[in-house]
Amino acid sequence: MRNDKIEYKVLKSEYIFDRPWLKARCDSIVSPNGKKNSEYYVLEYPDWVNTIAITKEGKFVMIYQYRHGLKYTGYELCAGVCEKTDTSFEAAARRELLEETGYGNGKWQEICTICGNTSSTNNYSHCFLATDVEKIGEQHLDATEDLSYELLTEKDVFQLLSEDKIKQAIMTTPLWKYFYYKRYK
Amino acid sequence: MRNDKIEYKVLKSEYIFDRPWLKARCDSIVSPNGKKNSEYYVLEYPDWVNTIAITKEGKFVMIYQYRHGLKYTGYELCAGVCEKTDTSFEAAARRELLEETGYGNGKWQEICTICGNTSSTNNYSHCFLATDVEKIGEQHLDATEDLSYELLTEKDVFQLLSEDKIKQAIMTTPLWKYFYYKRYK
Repeated sequence: MRNDKIEYKVLKSEYIFDRPWLKARCDSIVSPNGKKNSEYYVLEYPDWVNTIAITKEGKFVMIYQYRHGLKYTGYELCAGVCEKTDTSFEAAARRELLEETGYGNGKWQEICTICGNTSSTNNYSHCFLATDVEKIGEQHLDATEDLSYELLTEKDVFQLLSEDKIKQAIMTTPLWKYFYYKRYK
Repeated sequence: MRNDKIEYKVLKSEYIFDRPWLKARCDSIVSPNGKKNSEYYVLEYPDWVNTIAITKEGKFVMIYQYRHGLKYTGYELCAGVCEKTDTSFEAAARRELLEETGYGNGKWQEICTICGNTSSTNNYSHCFLATDVEKIGEQHLDATEDLSYELLTEKDVFQLLSEDKIKQAIMTTPLWKYFYYKRYK
């Protein structure tokens, strides 16, 4: 297997948009073989986190919400953006779970680190598994957030996943990885 | 489990950028509970396809390339954009595999349909499994494409996947699903 880094040159780089939820730049790049792309757009985001949160009773803490990009309503993992005040990715994931559901404590591990789109975005999603979480507070949502949470059985979550009813790729990856290792450990 | 659709109202919608590789709009939306977001950005893309392509000899046809969003070089599945001239998602996936690797024929099925980001993007990724593919032509790349393909063993692909060396979430989801069902059936 190869492990070499292919080095593209950036000939020009320019920010074309800079707002809190959309920061985009246009780069002009050229490959080692001389193939040029003078209009390569990169979307810049902070890193993201999401969590497969499972209670002591084995229930999955899932979010039910509307997503305006895809214009659909469905179940997702608890997820959010890393803030500058978060001391680690795990701290960010714990904060988001507490804010969105009131659940916390438990045992945490990062089970995968992936990217929503390696071609057009510059950030990672840090995906956590938290077991033995428990209700320790109340939901505290941001001004623009409108979502609810629900405790689902493992069977329900697997059904949603296998029927493509959970649609967000940065969440379906850790869920499939979780179910893979659950069965084969 | 819930199945209701939460209906947000769109108060205003405006395109802010429209180029072949980046089309973005800004919507002002309000939730049923009255929570307003006057600056919600949606990135519009055509649907995408990708393929787990496996030869008759059991080798995986993988792409090795540089990805400028994340600024990394690594293995990915063969993938691309649905063109208006593609008669189906499978036709698009077959066209991309042939163009990028020269492989074709075989048995094809769509194994999952997911979204890179349900919050900020409006398109689906159609993920195919193609078995018994064979070399039927030569690589024909677009003017800006610079990539190579390689035949890897299943063991190599699983290692790349489990070590997060394949990073693109719309590809790691069908790969984990593939390995889950391969082991479990």
